[in-house]
Amino acid sequence: MTKLKTALIQQKCSNHRDDNIAKTSEMIRKAAASGAALVVLQELHTSTYFCQIESPDFFDLAESIPGASTDLFGKLAAELGIVIVTSLFERRAAGLYHNTAVVLESDGSIAGIYRKMHIPDDPGFYEKFYFTPGDLGFNPIKTSVGSLGILVCWDQWYPEAARMMSLAGADFLIYPTAIGWDPKDADDEKKRQADAWLTVQRGHAVANGIPVISVNRVGYEPSTEEDAAGIQFWGGSFVAGPQGEILVEGSRDNEQIILIDIDRKRSEKVRQIWPFLRDRRIDEYAELVRRYRD
Amino acid sequence: MTKLKTALIQQKCSNHRDDNIAKTSEMIRKAAASGAALVVLQELHTSTYFCQIESPDFFDLAESIPGASTDLFGKLAAELGIVIVTSLFERRAAGLYHNTAVVLESDGSIAGIYRKMHIPDDPGFYEKFYFTPGDLGFNPIKTSVGSLGILVCWDQWYPEAARMMSLAGADFLIYPTAIGWDPKDADDEKKRQADAWLTVQRGHAVANGIPVISVNRVGYEPSTEEDAAGIQFWGGSFVAGPQGEILVEGSRDNEQIILIDIDRKRSEKVRQIWPFLRDRRIDEYAELVRRYRD
Repeated sequence: MTKLKTALIQQKCSNHRDDNIAKTSEMIRKAAASGAALVVLQELHTSTYFCQIESPDFFDLAESIPGASTDLFGKLAAELGIVIVTSLFERRAAGLYHNTAVVLESDGSIAGIYRKMHIPDDPGFYEKFYFTPGDLGFNPIKTSVGSLGILVCWDQWYPEAARMMSLAGADFLIYPTAIGWDPKDADDEKKRQADAWLTVQRGHAVANGIPVISVNRVGYEPSTEEDAAGIQFWGGSFVAGPQGEILVEGSRDNEQIILIDIDRKRSEKVRQIWPFLRDRRIDEYAELVRRYRD
Repeated sequence: MTKLKTALIQQKCSNHRDDNIAKTSEMIRKAAASGAALVVLQELHTSTYFCQIESPDFFDLAESIPGASTDLFGKLAAELGIVIVTSLFERRAAGLYHNTAVVLESDGSIAGIYRKMHIPDDPGFYEKFYFTPGDLGFNPIKTSVGSLGILVCWDQWYPEAARMMSLAGADFLIYPTAIGWDPKDADDEKKRQADAWLTVQRGHAVANGIPVISVNRVGYEPSTEEDAAGIQFWGGSFVAGPQGEILVEGSRDNEQIILIDIDRKRSEKVRQIWPFLRDRRIDEYAELVRRYRD
């Protein structure tokens, strides 16, 4: 199998979990009917992005692994014979929660989980309140379609995370994400932000010589916080090839099933013309584990 | 001084060292006359790119530090009252050579040197024959215009190098470089290569929240190697801001003095809205010093 048909499910979410799951499931079925062998969902796709405010009530949205979501999407993976990358709010114990991606194998089993390692916290994205930073490290998840370097949202700004995954043999970097604009920001600032998001991830593809698959939420979600303008999620889910070239890019506004054939052999060819891994100065990188070199 | 007027000198080189230096000096004078306080030259600007073939004869091009080039550009820096980033083929001892950037302070003194750490070797770019990998680590050079994170060419593909510099307080990442196309490559491959080069460096700006200044050679240089098509250096010198936004971009074909005002205060503002340095998982990056995590 030299081509991997991949589907990115870019969607709007409501406060109704069952509706969200029904829509996601229908889009997954369509993607599978179109031949997708790998389906990637966006971050926290069963709910609106609740981190716009800090409220203890939202911890009740969390679920266990295995649990309702992994059972449901596992059954769908088995029925359709595909690999599905899901994202959920994990309840690990009372008072201990994570932002976790779960990969479901085509036989319905859990291939592995990744707990988001870098946790943001800025106005409208109060994730440090909800999510304990991951403690499983940066380890790709082996599946029947390849070794998946799953990372989540804020991780996408960190070249270290991408590198750790590629050094461990990831065939692809995969980012379920939920990022958007503050509607009050000026248009030029919005453009810089969305371009930066795209560019830094394309840079990971280049530096590591492997494709990047990034799936982002779309649509406007209001905030209940006073003076907060809500978030306009900017969509633009994309796949970049191993030279960072854009293979496909989604809409800024609309729900979409984005289908793309990824050439699995291209990565090795690119690494042969640009053998970056050969020349890493591992004798001089030790201080990357320092907070700051002061 | 909230704005730093910076000049990038993008030029063609011949086999005549004196002619190259005369042209470079004239362009530096023009840049200073236009108000530049920092002038950045391209990689190995006193000669053609001799690494297209492996010949022991070319070691005679190397020079000591201090030496002819640092004396000459040091005098010019002092006369014009500017900081100049130069690049040269360093003779450290008989049989021990480096690809070295030298920063000349506005009083004519040597502010510091950087020895290229990552050394490429691929058809037409046989640098491992000529250059011993640098042994000075990744340390910014302090100058009157700021702390300069000097890196050279192949270094630009390594997020680790950029990060090491920013962790040590670099205000800017600066890449003298000499990169071009194999004229035999197809147009789509050429486009992917130049885009990848631009993208990965813009990614370093984003990940580190500081500007990137990259100065590349331009023009065609033939090879004396049989069946080799020479190199079409692709120019395109550029400056990106701390969100990776392109502030200015040079021609693909022509010699240019590229002038740009860089806003020195923007970096801190960008790091305040995107506090990536706050959230690095330094407890989980230790394996970045491994060759491969197998």
